[in-house]
Amino acid sequence: MHTTPAIVSIPPTMKALELRGYGGMNDLALASRPTPRPGRGEVLVRMAAAPINPSDLLFLRGRYGIRKTLPTIPGFEGSGLVVAAGEGVYARALLGRRVACAASSGDGTWAEYMVTRASACLPLLPHVSYMGGAMLIVNPLSAIALLDIARRGGHRAVAHTAAASALGRALVRLAQPRGPVLVNIVRRAEQVAILRDLGATYILDSSGPDFDRQLAETCAALHVTLAFDAIAGEMTGRLLRAMPPGGRVLVYGALSEEACQIDPSEFIFRRQQAGGFWLSDWIARQSFLKIVLLGLRLQTSLFKAVDTVIQARIPLERAHEGLAQYEQQMSRGKVLLVPFVRGL
Amino acid sequence: MHTTPAIVSIPPTMKALELRGYGGMNDLALASRPTPRPGRGEVLVRMAAAPINPSDLLFLRGRYGIRKTLPTIPGFEGSGLVVAAGEGVYARALLGRRVACAASSGDGTWAEYMVTRASACLPLLPHVSYMGGAMLIVNPLSAIALLDIARRGGHRAVAHTAAASALGRALVRLAQPRGPVLVNIVRRAEQVAILRDLGATYILDSSGPDFDRQLAETCAALHVTLAFDAIAGEMTGRLLRAMPPGGRVLVYGALSEEACQIDPSEFIFRRQQAGGFWLSDWIARQSFLKIVLLGLRLQTSLFKAVDTVIQARIPLERAHEGLAQYEQQMSRGKVLLVPFVRGL
Repeated sequence: MHTTPAIVSIPPTMKALELRGYGGMNDLALASRPTPRPGRGEVLVRMAAAPINPSDLLFLRGRYGIRKTLPTIPGFEGSGLVVAAGEGVYARALLGRRVACAASSGDGTWAEYMVTRASACLPLLPHVSYMGGAMLIVNPLSAIALLDIARRGGHRAVAHTAAASALGRALVRLAQPRGPVLVNIVRRAEQVAILRDLGATYILDSSGPDFDRQLAETCAALHVTLAFDAIAGEMTGRLLRAMPPGGRVLVYGALSEEACQIDPSEFIFRRQQAGGFWLSDWIARQSFLKIVLLGLRLQTSLFKAVDTVIQARIPLERAHEGLAQYEQQMSRGKVLLVPFVRGL
Repeated sequence: MHTTPAIVSIPPTMKALELRGYGGMNDLALASRPTPRPGRGEVLVRMAAAPINPSDLLFLRGRYGIRKTLPTIPGFEGSGLVVAAGEGVYARALLGRRVACAASSGDGTWAEYMVTRASACLPLLPHVSYMGGAMLIVNPLSAIALLDIARRGGHRAVAHTAAASALGRALVRLAQPRGPVLVNIVRRAEQVAILRDLGATYILDSSGPDFDRQLAETCAALHVTLAFDAIAGEMTGRLLRAMPPGGRVLVYGALSEEACQIDPSEFIFRRQQAGGFWLSDWIARQSFLKIVLLGLRLQTSLFKAVDTVIQARIPLERAHEGLAQYEQQMSRGKVLLVPFVRGL
């Protein structure tokens, strides 16, 4: 196997956060590991930054739906410099480039180095920092994918939960110029203002006493025919109950960590439907060119729409602290893990 | 409004079972009511027999999903003689004919007379008794509709729950000549023999300790891509978990009387989908001609496949007794309400 020579010297071992059991952050430890080598179609990224996302918290507890063989390095996305490449045109073209990157099926981004598929990398434009680029894939691309689904399905009005999350806010901003109209559902009264500042029109607080009636009235008035649900549990059924007959919910998250509960009458008598959305599946159905172009658009015309608030940058050694901070106050912004602090 | 003269003398009042609250059979009472008159496109049926179906039991307790304004007469299907008709070609053509009939949006079949839409009636062939014709619509037509959905969707193997029910048995028999292959799920060990006697090949007992693993293995081996669920509750989620990725469950009943519980991972990571089936919706999407022809086929080539065991025939006055008997031993056969006992 031929590997293009590395552009910088790569140490034989690296620091990484290693998950040794699915017991949450208690099973996460800083470890020294051999620095991996890229295979065919793969690149080695020297990680600059990697965010903690809600999906990471689920993954640490084995509740993400996909489990990797242990021990494994968590982290679904990040940014960095491509310092080595395996065979393949695109892999080699990335050598020396700053990229946003997603983890493949193997180890993840919470390490000094990561091997991933070249096709899981998006080149960063000069004006985009590593910090901004580290959060380009999971949330903004998911928002674009969900809007693509809504528009292609001819849905003019869409409800979504966890509207104040990074993904929720990206949806609000990206939907504004062309639609669909969004019914934004938040879980706490103080999040209403966050959404209002973003220019959202319809904002409902699910902790309010009259939420279900308000949601049903809003869905009827706006002809909501689709909902995106990041909560699961009872919320999935409440969305279906609120929508006019023939409605559809796509579950893309499970913040409640509970099973979706849906009154069978919704399926039988009201023709409601339930399905899911997973970014990896969506990407696999798109052309590679479309993804690269979307990545560029995200960094140019759409960049303002998706910038994400960063509440802290933390080295790998202090990951537990960062995880605790994020888990307590998710809506204050992202926590970024920064492996090479001196590089900041 | 012009009404074709009645073919027999119709008394001004009739006996009917009247539901006065959604508290189950305690809220059901024998009453005297004005005999209704058919409007445009409607007929008046002198009822010969009307079965008690599981959907009736749910309806009495307000759990059927559709509630009618109280007081109302329950009963979704039955058979009888068309003794008066409103305007309309098909309504008049039915006058004097023996029919299988379904209730429209108004009062139901548990009465001496019922007005319903002419399009909700299927003429009975001479060899089909009122007793056999009374159960032609809800279960056999549902089975035909479900198989139609499976075949049009290209599903070669389908799982279904409550396989020993009248509808389940109709599915087993109607699927045999052409497919799809059925994975038959029953809830009690003694029902396995019932299914085996019908010629079923794959029979699983959900009360067994190893059911989920067996179901997953069977679904994988046979490439089951669709499931029909009459149970809801946890069963809906278990079906989705057992099916290979990309599977779909259609809920058509709620025997558990519980909300469907579905792990969000099934939607997100395994591309599973959930929806429903309701015979009324399905019929509304078919041409009237197709329904009439299916009704005739059900009485000729398919009749052997759908005959239903009758455990008791009971006059309206003893309806409570019949309801209790049916509820205790559903799989022993149908209980028929017979308003004019002398006519038997």
